[in-house]
Amino acid sequence: MNFGSDNQSGASDKVIHALLKANQGVSASYGADEWTLRAEQKLRDVFQTDLKAFFVTSGTAANCLALSSIVNPWDTILCHGHAHIINDELTAPEFYTGGARLQSLGLDSPKLKAEALNSYLDTFEGHPPHTAIPRALSLTQLNEAGCAYTLSEINQLTSIASKHDMLVHMDGARFSNALVGLGCSPAEMTWKAGVDVLCLGASKNGTLAAEAVIFFNPDLAANFEFRRKRAGHLLSKGRVLGAQMCAWLEGQHWLDLARTSNERAEQLAEGILASANAELVWPVDGNELFALIKHSQIEALRSEGAIFYAWPERFLGSSKHVADDESLVRLVISFNTSEREVRDFIRLLG
Amino acid sequence: MNFGSDNQSGASDKVIHALLKANQGVSASYGADEWTLRAEQKLRDVFQTDLKAFFVTSGTAANCLALSSIVNPWDTILCHGHAHIINDELTAPEFYTGGARLQSLGLDSPKLKAEALNSYLDTFEGHPPHTAIPRALSLTQLNEAGCAYTLSEINQLTSIASKHDMLVHMDGARFSNALVGLGCSPAEMTWKAGVDVLCLGASKNGTLAAEAVIFFNPDLAANFEFRRKRAGHLLSKGRVLGAQMCAWLEGQHWLDLARTSNERAEQLAEGILASANAELVWPVDGNELFALIKHSQIEALRSEGAIFYAWPERFLGSSKHVADDESLVRLVISFNTSEREVRDFIRLLG
Amino acid sequence: MNFGSDNQSGASDKVIHALLKANQGVSASYGADEWTLRAEQKLRDVFQTDLKAFFVTSGTAANCLALSSIVNPWDTILCHGHAHIINDELTAPEFYTGGARLQSLGLDSPKLKAEALNSYLDTFEGHPPHTAIPRALSLTQLNEAGCAYTLSEINQLTSIASKHDMLVHMDGARFSNALVGLGCSPAEMTWKAGVDVLCLGASKNGTLAAEAVIFFNPDLAANFEFRRKRAGHLLSKGRVLGAQMCAWLEGQHWLDLARTSNERAEQLAEGILASANAELVWPVDGNELFALIKHSQIEALRSEGAIFYAWPERFLGSSKHVADDESLVRLVISFNTSEREVRDFIRLLG
Amino acid sequence: MNFGSDNQSGASDKVIHALLKANQGVSASYGADEWTLRAEQKLRDVFQTDLKAFFVTSGTAANCLALSSIVNPWDTILCHGHAHIINDELTAPEFYTGGARLQSLGLDSPKLKAEALNSYLDTFEGHPPHTAIPRALSLTQLNEAGCAYTLSEINQLTSIASKHDMLVHMDGARFSNALVGLGCSPAEMTWKAGVDVLCLGASKNGTLAAEAVIFFNPDLAANFEFRRKRAGHLLSKGRVLGAQMCAWLEGQHWLDLARTSNERAEQLAEGILASANAELVWPVDGNELFALIKHSQIEALRSEGAIFYAWPERFLGSSKHVADDESLVRLVISFNTSEREVRDFIRLLG
Repeated sequence: MNFGSDNQSGASDKVIHALLKANQGVSASYGADEWTLRAEQKLRDVFQTDLKAFFVTSGTAANCLALSSIVNPWDTILCHGHAHIINDELTAPEFYTGGARLQSLGLDSPKLKAEALNSYLDTFEGHPPHTAIPRALSLTQLNEAGCAYTLSEINQLTSIASKHDMLVHMDGARFSNALVGLGCSPAEMTWKAGVDVLCLGASKNGTLAAEAVIFFNPDLAANFEFRRKRAGHLLSKGRVLGAQMCAWLEGQHWLDLARTSNERAEQLAEGILASANAELVWPVDGNELFALIKHSQIEALRSEGAIFYAWPERFLGSSKHVADDESLVRLVISFNTSEREVRDFIRLLG
Repeated sequence: MNFGSDNQSGASDKVIHALLKANQGVSASYGADEWTLRAEQKLRDVFQTDLKAFFVTSGTAANCLALSSIVNPWDTILCHGHAHIINDELTAPEFYTGGARLQSLGLDSPKLKAEALNSYLDTFEGHPPHTAIPRALSLTQLNEAGCAYTLSEINQLTSIASKHDMLVHMDGARFSNALVGLGCSPAEMTWKAGVDVLCLGASKNGTLAAEAVIFFNPDLAANFEFRRKRAGHLLSKGRVLGAQMCAWLEGQHWLDLARTSNERAEQLAEGILASANAELVWPVDGNELFALIKHSQIEALRSEGAIFYAWPERFLGSSKHVADDESLVRLVISFNTSEREVRDFIRLLG
Repeated sequence: MNFGSDNQSGASDKVIHALLKANQGVSASYGADEWTLRAEQKLRDVFQTDLKAFFVTSGTAANCLALSSIVNPWDTILCHGHAHIINDELTAPEFYTGGARLQSLGLDSPKLKAEALNSYLDTFEGHPPHTAIPRALSLTQLNEAGCAYTLSEINQLTSIASKHDMLVHMDGARFSNALVGLGCSPAEMTWKAGVDVLCLGASKNGTLAAEAVIFFNPDLAANFEFRRKRAGHLLSKGRVLGAQMCAWLEGQHWLDLARTSNERAEQLAEGILASANAELVWPVDGNELFALIKHSQIEALRSEGAIFYAWPERFLGSSKHVADDESLVRLVISFNTSEREVRDFIRLLG
Repeated sequence: MNFGSDNQSGASDKVIHALLKANQGVSASYGADEWTLRAEQKLRDVFQTDLKAFFVTSGTAANCLALSSIVNPWDTILCHGHAHIINDELTAPEFYTGGARLQSLGLDSPKLKAEALNSYLDTFEGHPPHTAIPRALSLTQLNEAGCAYTLSEINQLTSIASKHDMLVHMDGARFSNALVGLGCSPAEMTWKAGVDVLCLGASKNGTLAAEAVIFFNPDLAANFEFRRKRAGHLLSKGRVLGAQMCAWLEGQHWLDLARTSNERAEQLAEGILASANAELVWPVDGNELFALIKHSQIEALRSEGAIFYAWPERFLGSSKHVADDESLVRLVISFNTSEREVRDFIRLLG
């Protein structure tokens, strides 16, 4: 019963065998190999547009390289208070951008609201060059509360950003889960909705370590090759990343994996809703659930081997009260979480 | 009637003439001159302790060099939402520290409260190396709302910081105004109260451009020479800074200047309190006042030549309501603001 | 006939199958997995000492993270003019160290000579804080001219470094080839010879992408976790690196692979020595050869499918004259270069 | 008898009195004052072209801010081995540029030769994104050997730079001495000769602390305001810099001061040429002399109070032999060095 994190699974069978196959023989180094080129082409097909894509091994590298491509070292990046970039990537955003600043827009709701963004920008009154000015908006899809922004919400937020001369970054660590949840196309959820650069995460959903930084406006990618090399993220054996991405995207494999996770997550959500011992705190739009669970039940689950983590209660903002006999936990479903694990969890939850 | 900023005045007569005098003849360069050495010694006398002091030309340089001496590039610096370092120094803190992060602790009260600090730290739950951890607390004295932390408040805040292995920086851009307001000794307001490094501002109160970075724990200063040189803040003609600081500290000149400003500020505060057209929003503990003034009066004052600036109303937090016919303004008194300017302002305010 | 680079081969069968096996099931993330812990333990055994080891995916990341652990942003790092860190890692060393400087010590000989190092340091006359001072020496073993420093040479160079308060970094991208060439123990070639931190490269000799940063003085590793995370080089699935390293070190597999490469390189060297159409420019101590080859032969080789690269002739320094009808080329042997490829090359060279 | 450095003099009487006068009353802050605006306009007159100018307090700040405006963090800056930026500004260039690299082009001649620059660039063979590519050339005028590049030499060097897509920075710490020496116009020595950005130094020749960064192509200045503020080099009291620069440029005062220094330097040079105890090592084109002086004479001079510094003999390159009984010293003349000091020095030299 592992609900610890979707990064605790390995790669899918398809992906690992594609890597095994690509490992044979010699190939050009530093991303000039056939797999890398093919993976970039596949992304053009998937996103139905021209684009520039670069592959790296970690989400932190992808996000921070992307952000460094759209802000100056004296700009501010706005994000929700839950964002991975502000909570879980140490000060990598500052390191990569040369010192740009992250500004959290609060924890009052699990998703960033247009009103909150408008209100911040309308009352900001910065005076350059003294004040760092917002120049980028970073959205996470699926976000860190497990919620997906709807197309309408994304469009609304990116319009506000655009009005204020800001570019838009999307942290898509769980992009496929959000996409399957919304049932829309990759294009609709990104460039058609005003996203300038996407970090498409594959490591949490079927690859070993492979993320794509995708620029829908190729001009923004002008220096990416230099930024990636300078950070030590240009792998000599490019096929390692290219082969994973090819297999992952092939035949909608990535969406199949995400669909499996989301279905299990829905089952788990239903079990929690039906239980008197637990309560979901945010809508479940993908493969992550956040629940307040009675301490007695947490103990019971753990004693039976269930793995999951407590989540900082500050992330609830002021909206939720946590009773003395319960705690906030995060439950993450991976593509290889079994139905049986879900059923066992529900049974033990009571 | 200039209430624009205390940085719009020149140096005091004493200071400028000391500079004129020090300008004669040759002297050793790069801070090895007699004035620099004497100024550091004077600071030891003034603060009644051994210390290491370094002089630079700007408050931003002083603050950011100081902060870079007490945090790692992957640490967080806590400060009040009003702080100059987070609002008015662009991303200099990030630049100097190599990418450390500033975390604002809100705008709910004009001074940072012990409860707010405790609450933040107690619910923080960072998990290294993923989360940037608070390793410094920055206090501003006089703060950017014009208020002075009492000795008891400073002690309380630095104790909390210390309990969490954080060092304490004091931005003393208007240190002398706070000191005169509290009527305590420099030692009591700093190292005796748990401050590790002080940026003592002189530029806003009688010098042309001279700030001292003062380390009460000399170990923290180990690399300061390198940091200052690397930032281009080591002046070849050290006497420019040394001579200003000597004259400023000599015979309590700095305190006399601050006392004059504070007295005028008190007169102005009384005038505002007595007016039906204006309201002070925060206590006046030094030489800065923040008031809501009726638009009709703002126009009347400006048409008579009064200079003062609107202040972003977001800094009021949620505590104050601003009516449609009024705006928030900042009024700053300098050592050479005349009584007459104050009287005229009050008269025009009505 | 691929002599392009040892990074154009995939992983060895043992390594890729170990990865396939490790991919099964769930495991702890961020380096807390069993393979990572076991790999670090194996390195302790291999180097016969306590040590701290960290795994990353690229040599540039390994080198630059290591260097950032041993110098301040205002220090200088000395290296040979051939060094990968100064020629092939863009400005990653500057990025990671926060702006430390690389100083090349020339191209007069393929290996850095004790006399050159002594001469540089003895005549340096820096005056802090104005001059950046040498605080680290970086040696490459096998170096970029294909030569191995003997134990005596390493000891001599590190003694000089130590006398000048410098720490020593070893770029061991082809460490195993040098080790097999010298026939000494890993301990003798590193910490027993005065090396403080080693970047042990595996990607060029049997793994997909796996490098170890090894601190023989654990104090130097104090902040490494933060540095690696901040650079996006902490993989969520630590087993990817751990499993490769375990298999690579297991049963001397790494040395067997290097031995194979070195033997083929020796055969190739003999062929070149025997040819009237080519000349080796530097001693061959591992798996890299540098030769002046007649243009006619280069064409003949390439037309038969031989892959190899021209090498910038500036690296010859002033010691070698290049005739009009020849060019400098680099020939690299990998663990899976076949005897047949070597024989064919020699035959075509004539 | 002070020949230590031209930065050991104070400001000229005209300049210090202008500062005293500008100190009266209130004025706009952060460079919006009348003196700053007037100084920028004066520079347009002096250089007979439109330009953007910014004032800072130190040469290191000026140089490094300028360089950061013309290179990316992954580029290389070429300079002569004598350059102040590589020898005397710690790692400020790296700090300000975000990690760009300095490449010294040797010490074989006191001025950078077109052949040396051509030879470096023609044999460079970088391969992006692996190799840092030269993108700026920095020339020092008067250079650190006391020599002035002729107009023809500047034109030749900047043409080579331009051919290789490099921009040109001029470190003009002693610009006025070179200008007076060559007897040309400021325009001829800069933008007409291919210089893109000039750091015009005034601190060594009549001001307290004031340098101008001058962009002849205003596009390059687009982000300068942000860079300066972020570095803490935007003074709140802009008139401090503006007033110094106005007085310095007024009525050719700056050139008069330089002419005085150069004349004294010429007298001193003649004395040394006539002496059997000393030898000039480089041509004297401004106010700096470098001489090999017999130890006996050095002692005699110092015992009579002469102040001057030994200069690292490595700067002689391989071109000069230093005998056992002599040392290399630097002698710098300031605008207020007296004829008497020069005569006394010559007399004691014997």
